[in-house]
Formats: sequence, structure tokens, C-alpha cells
Amino acid sequence: MKKNINIAIVGLGQIGIYLHNELNLKKKDIEKKTGKKIKIVAVSAKNKNKKRRFSFPKKIFYKDPIKIFENENIDILFECVGLSDGISKQIVELALRKKSHVITPNKALIAKHGDTLSKLAELNRVNLEFEASVAGGIPILRTIKEGLATNKINKVYGILNGTTNYILSEMENINEPFDKVLKKAQILGYAEPGNPKLDLNGFDAFAKVRILSALAFNNKISKSKCIMEGIENIELKDIKIANQLNYRIKLLGISEIINNKLFETVHPCLVKKSSYIGNVNGVMNAVIIEGKPVGESILQGEGAGAGPTSSSLLSDLLSILRGNIKYPFGIASNKRATINTYNKDYYSNSLYLRFEVKDKQGVLSSITNRLSKFKISVKRIIQTPDKKNNRATIVIITHKTTEINVRKCLSNFKNNKNLIKFPTLIRLYN
Amino acid sequence: MKKNINIAIVGLGQIGIYLHNELNLKKKDIEKKTGKKIKIVAVSAKNKNKKRRFSFPKKIFYKDPIKIFENENIDILFECVGLSDGISKQIVELALRKKSHVITPNKALIAKHGDTLSKLAELNRVNLEFEASVAGGIPILRTIKEGLATNKINKVYGILNGTTNYILSEMENINEPFDKVLKKAQILGYAEPGNPKLDLNGFDAFAKVRILSALAFNNKISKSKCIMEGIENIELKDIKIANQLNYRIKLLGISEIINNKLFETVHPCLVKKSSYIGNVNGVMNAVIIEGKPVGESILQGEGAGAGPTSSSLLSDLLSILRGNIKYPFGIASNKRATINTYNKDYYSNSLYLRFEVKDKQGVLSSITNRLSKFKISVKRIIQTPDKKNNRATIVIITHKTTEINVRKCLSNFKNNKNLIKFPTLIRLYN
Repeated sequence: MKKNINIAIVGLGQIGIYLHNELNLKKKDIEKKTGKKIKIVAVSAKNKNKKRRFSFPKKIFYKDPIKIFENENIDILFECVGLSDGISKQIVELALRKKSHVITPNKALIAKHGDTLSKLAELNRVNLEFEASVAGGIPILRTIKEGLATNKINKVYGILNGTTNYILSEMENINEPFDKVLKKAQILGYAEPGNPKLDLNGFDAFAKVRILSALAFNNKISKSKCIMEGIENIELKDIKIANQLNYRIKLLGISEIINNKLFETVHPCLVKKSSYIGNVNGVMNAVIIEGKPVGESILQGEGAGAGPTSSSLLSDLLSILRGNIKYPFGIASNKRATINTYNKDYYSNSLYLRFEVKDKQGVLSSITNRLSKFKISVKRIIQTPDKKNNRATIVIITHKTTEINVRKCLSNFKNNKNLIKFPTLIRLYN
Repeated sequence: MKKNINIAIVGLGQIGIYLHNELNLKKKDIEKKTGKKIKIVAVSAKNKNKKRRFSFPKKIFYKDPIKIFENENIDILFECVGLSDGISKQIVELALRKKSHVITPNKALIAKHGDTLSKLAELNRVNLEFEASVAGGIPILRTIKEGLATNKINKVYGILNGTTNYILSEMENINEPFDKVLKKAQILGYAEPGNPKLDLNGFDAFAKVRILSALAFNNKISKSKCIMEGIENIELKDIKIANQLNYRIKLLGISEIINNKLFETVHPCLVKKSSYIGNVNGVMNAVIIEGKPVGESILQGEGAGAGPTSSSLLSDLLSILRGNIKYPFGIASNKRATINTYNKDYYSNSLYLRFEVKDKQGVLSSITNRLSKFKISVKRIIQTPDKKNNRATIVIITHKTTEINVRKCLSNFKNNKNLIKFPTLIRLYN
């Protein structure tokens, strides 16, 4: 690799502009560590004059990022637009074809097109690096690809979305409902001001789960339709009841090999307050890897924000500048296998079920009868009457049961005249 | 790098023999990941016929490891003897001079001779890798060198010794004194059966602190004489009192830049039970890195044992097989600076002081008077009389004070006729 390295940044949002600033601040340090002189020769964004946290030289601005590759010799492209398709995909493909290395924090792009893009990178003998796409500043992908290489990993799971973890923690802390806390999160910049849906409904965490699976199990990115649930339906009431039972509610992403099949899921879980994962609060992310011979490894750090993301982007940059051409997913594309999907119907957990019922005689026994008909055995019942409104809350913690079983059982409660709403279901972790 | 790679393992103790077995088990996987075929062509140990956990082919055995390099073409040497000097140093130097890559879990060797050995490796353009020397299976060195490269780290600390963490946890769990728990640890293989001193007195953790500093701050390995205290003097009584006060006792290793100076220490600390570090129990290790812009990063995993160590040794192997020639300490030796040492006299903490006194009037006030003479202000006092033996235990939690101050103050208690023994001092973390 030559000594002078030309860099382009496409996308100047929160992350792109922070990165631009960091690269300039750390030029000397980067040269000291790698012997390479970097130079940002082009940037591109939708809007040249938007108010941004840091400034950039206007003379290197391109309205159309495609033009960058017509005018400049780009060694390394940072793609910071963040779409799964459109200009993100287009510019990354163009760069790889032009034999530029690509670094991106774009999990949507990698989760959707990672397989074809990594093939393209291998074909052109350049790097495609995406450390920042999962768990912000935590170098989790590098840890799996390198630090724990040769371990047989059987499970990777954790808290992969800072927005939802902040909201759940804060609902507990300040005793306010979901909507209010979401607004606070938006003001603080922890949730997208426009459309926070992709964080809240589990989509963001699920993209990260898919990337983690591909690295941990050396498989192609799965297209499995597993359980994906977000936190939109978690009520303050659930958080309070969980609290009394010594649990916290966390949105977990889980990727696991069960009977040689791949199981991937994202859903809220009740986790013990005394557990490690029960104490990862606020915007923190944590990833737990179970492997042999290493045992259980935990990595925790800030999962979002321009600073941590930029830390990972720069670690990718250093890896490239040190001349390490590597397979994007740790092994050659043609050696990555397809693993069959585990049937989610057999996913089995203890459950937290909350029933809001009319306070009439026989309601509780009709519920427990129905559960027992489906062989769902009860571990604990907490009934809280609300005499004033003539209703009651019944919370049932069950022993382990399968998804298919509980789905069938709960479908029986549809249009039940004694129920004020359809029961709330939250799984217990382990 | 050629396709067929010859490997030698020197030292066939717990780690060496486990590694030998793993390498054979993972040959195929390693070829899949790197395209290289590895072959173990030589092993060496003091005793050929000792009973070992796994077998090895006797025909590749060398009594004298030096001879290996006369007879064989070695691409990669694993040094698993574990001495800071002697044959460990000799064989590593020989290998590097013969342009063989070296991988070692030997923290004593690296902490003492890492600077000269890394120069030798750079001169001969081979790798010297030592991921397994710090925190067993946790890929902490790689994380600092690569995953967090370009972050400005100001502090690295954590639980770096599994033996002492196991003993402290177990004293609390089973309510037994140090000696008994140490014996149990030796039986379980968590402490050296012969001479466990280097774990217990903090030496092992201190070697790891020095290696962490060198990587985090890009300095030469320091020779500083900072505070190094082990857990030999921690009594079950201290653990119980700490427990009542909502603390746990942990042996922490800390490396920090204070006023542009380097401060390295290992000593027992009272940490809050509710803190993250207060919940890292048993043989687990944990390392916490504070850096900018990444924020706080935590890595936790099994810190000792052949499995986790072997995981790190193999990660080094893969890094080499992937053809990444790297500076052992992340940057070139001639760019590593020397950082002045922070004066330990000014290290300042809240303190836990335990006085065992004769139960006489005026003893407490004479103690507090002496503390106040040295401007050590008291936050909390717990006096527990032992009427039967006509004595009392006085525990004092102080506000922050400097080392020099407390040393001067405590020296006043030498030969004090009212004290049954010299006061016990444990620092509070933060």
C-alpha cells in the first residue's frame, strides 16, 4: 500500500461529520501507528449548507457522490448514509469495483446485502469493514473474527440497541410511561426525532443479530423469519410488576445454534435484577459470547452515538492501513455455509402473562383452566384487584412452554368477554 | 507466507499440552480460515514421561529445546515454559533471530523483557504475540491495539488475577478463612500447588498492569516502583465487615495517567456491591477501559485455565497465519515513549482502617485524635466490642487522604500498647 491515502466520506449526518473531524484530529497519531498519511479529498451529502456540529472545507464537497469516483482516486470510502439500498448500496458497490476499501457503520446494508458485497470485495481484493454496525464502540466483530477465532461459539446474545435500553431503564427510573420517555429520548438524541420505529420494533437489533450470527457461525446471512418483537407494547405497569418480582425488562437479541439449527430472535425479556444483563442500563450495549474453549465472554460499552461509532470506524481504518486484507466475514465467501433455521414453534420459555380482567367470580379459574388445558403449568400468580374500577390484574409466571403452545392457548382469549384487553406476554430469559 | 507451517511447542505443562491437543483438533478449521496447513514438528519439556492430560507423539520430543532450531525449520514457536528468564528468554530470542514468529502466554517474560524482545522481532520482521499473557481468554490486548486504536485512553483497570478473585469470592461464599480457601483453590487447580506466592502477592497482576500500560499509553514498559499489595493479609473478618457495609473486597490492578504521569498499582480494594466490578466473582477477570471518544468499555471472561489461554494463543496464531506482520506493542519500538512515574505518595483514597484494640476507656478517642492530627477525617466508625476477650474491633472509613499522610499517621501506631496488632488498611475504590 502506498504512503499517501485518499479518503472520501459519503454522508455527513451525526456520524459522518464527527468522523470527518476525528480523522483530521488524529492524522498524526494515525501516521505514527501505521506510517500512512491520510487525506480527506472528498465529502458528499444531500445538503451542503445544513447546520452541522463541525465544519468541513466546502471545496471538497460533492452533491453527487458518484462523481467523486470520476474525479478522484479514492483509496478508502466511508459510507455513512445509512440506507439498506439506494445510494448507500450504489456507492459501496462502485467503490469496491474501483478497488477502493470500504468502511461503513451501516447495519441495514450489511444485514441485507453483506453476502454479495463481501464477494465483490474479495473479488477486487479490497476490504469491506463494518465494525461500527454492531454495538457502536464495542469491537465485537473483530473479537469474534480474530480474538476468539477457532473457538466453537454456540450462542451470542445481548443488549444490542441503546435507544430501547435507555427507554426501558428510564421508564423504571423516573416512573413515567413509554410515550413520555420516548419524547425525552428524542430530545436527548437517543432516539430518532423523525421516525424511531426501526429501533423500537426490534428491526435494528435484528439486523445486528444477523450480522453476529454470520460471524459467529460462519454462515451466510440468514433470511429466517424468527420472532421479532419490539418494546412498543411494554407498559409502565409491566416494568413495575417485574420490579416487584425482582426482574427487569430488557430487549434482547439472541443468536443460537439449537440442534444444529440456527435460531435468531429479538424480543423483550424478563431478566433477573441480580444477573449481569439485568444491570446493563441506559444507552449501554452488552454482548455475551458462549464458546469453547474460552467459556463465557462479555463485552460492554456505549452502543450508540457519534463518539463510540467513530472509534469503531477508525479501528477499521487502522486495520486497513496496516495492510491487512481480510475476508469481510472472517472466512472466504465460498466457504460460508447455509444453516437451516430452527423451527420457532418449539422455542420454549417460562412466560410472564398479564391479564386485565373484569372483577367477577370465576375469571381466574377460567384462565388457569385454559392454561392447564394446554399443559402450561403455573409457577406463580399475583392477582391485584382494582375495586374502584371493578377490575383486576392477574399476572401469571408459567413454567417452560413452547411458542406454538402458548400461541394456541392465547388465541382462545380473543374476544373473551371477561378480558379487558388481549393478554400481555413477555418471555423470561432462561 | 508459504502454505505449510511448521510449529514447535516448548513447555508441556497444563497450557502447552492443552494447546498441542487443540492445534491438532482445529487443524482443518485453521486451514479453512487461513488457507495454511499447520504441522507440529517438535515439542520440548523437562520431563518426557510425566503424566499429562493429553498424549503427544514421542518421536517429535526434544529434551533440549535449543536443538529444535538446529534440526527443524520452525515457522512459529509457542513458548509455554513461563519463566521470566532462563530457557524461556533464551528460546524466544533464538526463535526471533532465526526469523520464527513467537507466541507466548508468558506475562513475566513480556513484563520484564518485552521492550528488547519486541525490538528483536521488529528487526527480524516477525511477530511476537502475547494476547494470552493478560486476562486469559479475553482478547484485551488486541482490543486495545486494534479495536480501540486511535482512542485516547486515560485509564485501564480491573480484576486481572483469577486465583485471588476466586479466593476472595470463596471466603465470602463459604465463610472460611484465607488458608482453608487457598487449599481448596490448590486442589481445584485455581492456585499453584507448589508456590502460589506470585498470584497472592500481586506480582502476577502487576506484570499484567505493566503490559496493559505499555499498550494503552504507547510507552515503554515501566520499571516504576508503585504500590503492590496482595491479598495475603485479608482476613475473613474484613470480608464480613465489608459485606455489612455493602462492599466487597477485590484485588484491582490499575494503570492510569494522572497529570501526564503514569500511575500503576495493584492492591485490594473495597468496591461497592452494587458496582459492576463488585459482581465479577470467582475465577472471572474483567478489564475496564476509559477512553475518548469510545467512553467506558468493559471486557469480561475467564481469566485463567488452559481453555481460555489456548483460545488466546490460537487467536495469535490465526493473526500470524493471515499474514499480518504487526508491531508487538501496536507501534514501532522507536516511537514508544517513556512516561514519568506519578509520585505514589500523592495517591489518594478513602480508607478502611481496622484496629484491634484492648477494651479500655479512651482508646477510640486516642485513635481519632491521632487521625485528626494528620487531617484524616472520619466518615464512619463501627466499634464492635468482644467483652469475653476484653478487646474490641474498631473500623473506620475515612474521607480521602494521601498515601504519604496515612503512612506517617499509621507509623504512630507501631508499638502502641493499646493495639493488639498493627492496623489493617484497605483502600476504597473511588
